[in-house]
Amino acid sequence: MIQYERYLDVEIDEENSMLLLNAFGSMIREREKGVSGYYNLPDDSIHLLKEVENYIINEDGIYQSAENIVLIGIGGSSLGTKAVNSMLKHKYKNIKNLLFLENPDPLSISKIFSQIKKENSIFVVISKSGGTIETTSIFKTVIAHFDIDLNTAENKRVLIVTDDGSPLCKFADFHGIKVFVIPQNVGGRFSVLSAVGVVPLKLVGFDVESILRGAKSIMDKFFDSKIESIGLKALFYAQKKYPVNVLFSYADCLEDFTKWFVQLWAESLGKIDKEGKHTGLTPIGHIGSVDQHSFLQLIMQGVRDKTVTFIKVEDFENDLIVPSISLKNIEKVDYINSHSFNELINAECDATKESLIAENIPVDSITLDIISEENIGEMIMYFELLTSYTGLLLGINTYDQPGVENGKKILVKKFGGDK
Amino acid sequence: MIQYERYLDVEIDEENSMLLLNAFGSMIREREKGVSGYYNLPDDSIHLLKEVENYIINEDGIYQSAENIVLIGIGGSSLGTKAVNSMLKHKYKNIKNLLFLENPDPLSISKIFSQIKKENSIFVVISKSGGTIETTSIFKTVIAHFDIDLNTAENKRVLIVTDDGSPLCKFADFHGIKVFVIPQNVGGRFSVLSAVGVVPLKLVGFDVESILRGAKSIMDKFFDSKIESIGLKALFYAQKKYPVNVLFSYADCLEDFTKWFVQLWAESLGKIDKEGKHTGLTPIGHIGSVDQHSFLQLIMQGVRDKTVTFIKVEDFENDLIVPSISLKNIEKVDYINSHSFNELINAECDATKESLIAENIPVDSITLDIISEENIGEMIMYFELLTSYTGLLLGINTYDQPGVENGKKILVKKFGGDK
Repeated sequence: MIQYERYLDVEIDEENSMLLLNAFGSMIREREKGVSGYYNLPDDSIHLLKEVENYIINEDGIYQSAENIVLIGIGGSSLGTKAVNSMLKHKYKNIKNLLFLENPDPLSISKIFSQIKKENSIFVVISKSGGTIETTSIFKTVIAHFDIDLNTAENKRVLIVTDDGSPLCKFADFHGIKVFVIPQNVGGRFSVLSAVGVVPLKLVGFDVESILRGAKSIMDKFFDSKIESIGLKALFYAQKKYPVNVLFSYADCLEDFTKWFVQLWAESLGKIDKEGKHTGLTPIGHIGSVDQHSFLQLIMQGVRDKTVTFIKVEDFENDLIVPSISLKNIEKVDYINSHSFNELINAECDATKESLIAENIPVDSITLDIISEENIGEMIMYFELLTSYTGLLLGINTYDQPGVENGKKILVKKFGGDK
Repeated sequence: MIQYERYLDVEIDEENSMLLLNAFGSMIREREKGVSGYYNLPDDSIHLLKEVENYIINEDGIYQSAENIVLIGIGGSSLGTKAVNSMLKHKYKNIKNLLFLENPDPLSISKIFSQIKKENSIFVVISKSGGTIETTSIFKTVIAHFDIDLNTAENKRVLIVTDDGSPLCKFADFHGIKVFVIPQNVGGRFSVLSAVGVVPLKLVGFDVESILRGAKSIMDKFFDSKIESIGLKALFYAQKKYPVNVLFSYADCLEDFTKWFVQLWAESLGKIDKEGKHTGLTPIGHIGSVDQHSFLQLIMQGVRDKTVTFIKVEDFENDLIVPSISLKNIEKVDYINSHSFNELINAECDATKESLIAENIPVDSITLDIISEENIGEMIMYFELLTSYTGLLLGINTYDQPGVENGKKILVKKFGGDK
């Protein structure tokens, strides 16, 4: 269960009501016409679970001896999966280790290479286009380093997640490597509930079905017009009075989720709008309980251009307590004795939120009762719906990313490639 | 050796020249009058090395059997040390493991507890004020959990880093625990070259002397008026045309450094200025090679309010190469064959930089020839000097943080404390 509280004031006059209604109608059409396929993932991805289960049964020997699931992918192909893994892994025993070959940083790649063996690993190569230079380069290096013979049964250690018909897909077909398909109309940053996230997360051993169920539940409610708060929040953002949007998470395990949010928000909403104007909202992710010692100063006394969204976990399901002891000369802090860290971190969240509200800084909060698969699915879908809604109100294309192409072209040219 | 390139255009007319000269004069006075003590740390901290060495010699048994240095501290008391550790640790063999008890997140604390034993750990408790609630709470929990008897020689496993005369300092004196003093006029975010960073980093086994030497070298050059670029860059920022400042680091090991920069910049410059106006610059840290797949879109097509600073490592001292193999149907990416990942990641940095320059987005770049102690010391001091210079040009107090106090008061009240 997740509770949403909103302290962002937005006036609902006739004009705003129409804006909201129109944007909501557009979302219904986006879903029906498949402008973006992410709306269908909670239903459509169920069949992937069966597909992964079949792989697990068919390749029982490889699967049982695999200690590591090694994800080769970057950006949208890895961030969502990393976020879910970071949030959930402490709740499971006997799951597989999820490792990421993401950044083409030679030190990071070498370090992962030294931690794994071919015999205890399954490699999941993820690239929507099937030609991402970082991913294909790392994949080739894995093949050479671990001496993987793709023309033998060893290729069962490799799984490919990509668009149907992509170069990587054709490569897999040639070698008889198992492919999981990403729907054409699901972009990288909206893809965590597609094969991009479902395949590696299921292989690790997570209850992915519950994640999908959580996502479906909020989406159904949203399209049944039972959740007003997403539209109101989107409208507040779309007014662009507060163009910098800070996510303050009060749990270390949410750090990768804040990174996932940052790429979703930045890449979706940073666009040239219909009138040719540069527009967009700037997301920033922080661990609130740490960064309220520093970044908070900027929020309080800096330019008033920021909103803050607090994410809090009501029950960490952990009973670590500050012991009831007194240290000579620092008795002043004894007021915290016998309280749990769970209480402390959440009281910090509340105190910081109150101090911002007292200064009229727009905030809202998202409170998870516990860290659970359903809640994670819901949070993912919540932010995706919020992004779509805000994009429509801003009058931009939420789903493309023309701005990152020129750099890629320059890169290819540097290496004499012909793309 | 570090190379600085600047593509941020700033006009140097008479007025600007005067502004620069005045601010530079103010920095000289800040240093002489001890407005902030960080200017003196490269010299003053040398004696700490000897102090730590004495501890190592005196407590030889404890030190030799210690596998872990456990830092208990939050925000300015840990971020800088974490940044240095992350950048350097891959270059050393046989150093101790540095662990952080920072965030009062019960899951994180419990996890570290399960990884260490009292017998193989030295605990370094760091709090400038000596009463930081997160730090004292975690410290108490450590004492109880590991059953540390502070009235026996076991207290040699505990080291305290704090201001002279603070509650924590008095506590240490009472039990005969070794204290390393933080100069009163060195604030948390400027403290990494004081005992705050020097003590834990030296205990881990790093060559801290070279870090201090690197810091001293750039500071001496700066005050000898041999580095114009810092002032010019500060002036560009202080014009506030581009209030969002992005750091794009092209190496995973720099991620914690970007976090250190973010807190330094945000907390120092987010202030109410002399005229009572909310001012400040908003820093954002990213790993460029990953986030150029997402955040770059916002920089390119979003509101043009951002500068981008690229940090690049010329030589990773690692020869991992993309093998010269061709994968069926993805031969198109073979242009990268036989190139090193070192080349790839740096070419990405250059390509992205060029694509931003082509769009007239203000950028600059910092290129480390290698990751070395001297370069790290220089980078730390570079950003600290830049922050001081920018703060003076903005007409604010760079060294205080009044905006974080109210939240702390509310927190104490929630627990019935009397602060």
